[in-house]
Amino acid sequence: MSLDGFAAGPQQSKKNPLGIGGTRLHEWVLPLAAWRAQHGLEGGEVNESTRVFEESVADIGATIMGRNMFGGHPGPWHAAEPWNGWWGANPPYHHPVFVLTHHPRPPVALEGGTTFTFVTDGIEAALELAHRASRGLDVALAGGASTARQYLTAGLIDEMEIHLVPVLLGAGERLFEDVRDLGPLELARTVAAPNVTHLKFVRQ
Amino acid sequence: MSLDGFAAGPQQSKKNPLGIGGTRLHEWVLPLAAWRAQHGLEGGEVNESTRVFEESVADIGATIMGRNMFGGHPGPWHAAEPWNGWWGANPPYHHPVFVLTHHPRPPVALEGGTTFTFVTDGIEAALELAHRASRGLDVALAGGASTARQYLTAGLIDEMEIHLVPVLLGAGERLFEDVRDLGPLELARTVAAPNVTHLKFVRQ
Repeated sequence: MSLDGFAAGPQQSKKNPLGIGGTRLHEWVLPLAAWRAQHGLEGGEVNESTRVFEESVADIGATIMGRNMFGGHPGPWHAAEPWNGWWGANPPYHHPVFVLTHHPRPPVALEGGTTFTFVTDGIEAALELAHRASRGLDVALAGGASTARQYLTAGLIDEMEIHLVPVLLGAGERLFEDVRDLGPLELARTVAAPNVTHLKFVRQ
Repeated sequence: MSLDGFAAGPQQSKKNPLGIGGTRLHEWVLPLAAWRAQHGLEGGEVNESTRVFEESVADIGATIMGRNMFGGHPGPWHAAEPWNGWWGANPPYHHPVFVLTHHPRPPVALEGGTTFTFVTDGIEAALELAHRASRGLDVALAGGASTARQYLTAGLIDEMEIHLVPVLLGAGERLFEDVRDLGPLELARTVAAPNVTHLKFVRQ
C-alpha cells in the first residue's frame, strides 16, 4: 500500500494490471532472493524484508483472490481464448486457488500443483472451500483491494500484513475505502526494511 | 495520520477540534514523559517514541500553522471575544508562531514567549517571516493537513515526519489529498513504537 492508501494505481488494465505507478508498490519484493527463488530465479538480496516474505508464504495450503486480481477482462469468461491468470503455465502458488467471480467456469489445473477454482456464491463459500482444501494449513487472501475489503468488513481476517511503501500514487484503488475500523485486528509487529515498512495486524 | 490516510476525523468543530475519532491519532504522544514535561506535567513514559518527540521539538525557532489548526471559528476574527488558540495563557511553543489566515488581525503575545502573528499574504510570506524570526534555528510546520499539503505541493518541505497510527478513521481530512508525489522527499528512517510508527522523510 502507498503512503496515501492505494493498493493499485489508476487505470488498471490487461496491459497495466497494477494501474499507473502501481508497480512501485512491489519494488521492495522483486530483488529478494526469497521471491526470486519462488519464481525459479537465482541470486538476489537478503534484507529485513526476507523473513516477512518467507512468513507470508509459509504454511499456506490454499489461496483466495478476486476476479480483478486474477485479471484478464471483465464480464463472462471467453471460452475461445481462456485467460488463466498472470502467472504463466506454472504459477507460484503450488496449491488450490479460489477465484471470486460472478461468472461460472470449470476449474483450471496448471503445472506445479496450482489449480484455479471459480467460486460464484460469495466470500464465505470461498473461505469454506479454501479451508477444506488447505489440509490444515493456513488460507491466504492474496487480494485485490476490493476482495480484501469484503473479508475485512465481514470480520473474517485473522492476520493482515500491510507492506507500506513510502511513495504517493495520488489516485487509484484505496485499500481501506469505506472500511470503518479494523475490528479485532491490532498491530502486532513492525519491520522497517529498505523502501517498505511491514505492519502485521493480528486478531486480539 | 491514520492507516487510511486521515490527519483528522470528520466534523471538526470548536468542541471536537480533531474531528470524530481524531484524538486516537494523538494517543501515542500523551503518555510520554517528554510531552508531559513540555506541558508542565510530571511523570509519564519513556519508550521508542521519546527520541522522535524530542527531535521534533529540538532546535525549533519558529512555527507555522494554518487557521484551521489555530482554531476557534471560520471567517473574520471576533474582536469582542478574541480566540487565542487551543493552548491557554501559556502555549507550549515558547517562540514566534505564524498563523496563515485570510483575515488580518494584530499579533497576540502570550506568556512564556509564544507570539501569534497572523499572515494574510500566503505560505511563502509566512515562511520568510518564520525564517527571519527563527534566529538561525529550524522552522516547524505544525499543521493542519491543508497547510501541510500547500507547503508539500510547493516543494518547500525539507523534512517531514509521519506518525502513522494503526487505526482506521474511515472519514475525515486526508493528509495527502490531491498531492501527486513527495518530490525530493525520501524515507530516511523508521521507528517502530507502541501504537505508532514514525516515518521520517528528508529532502535528497
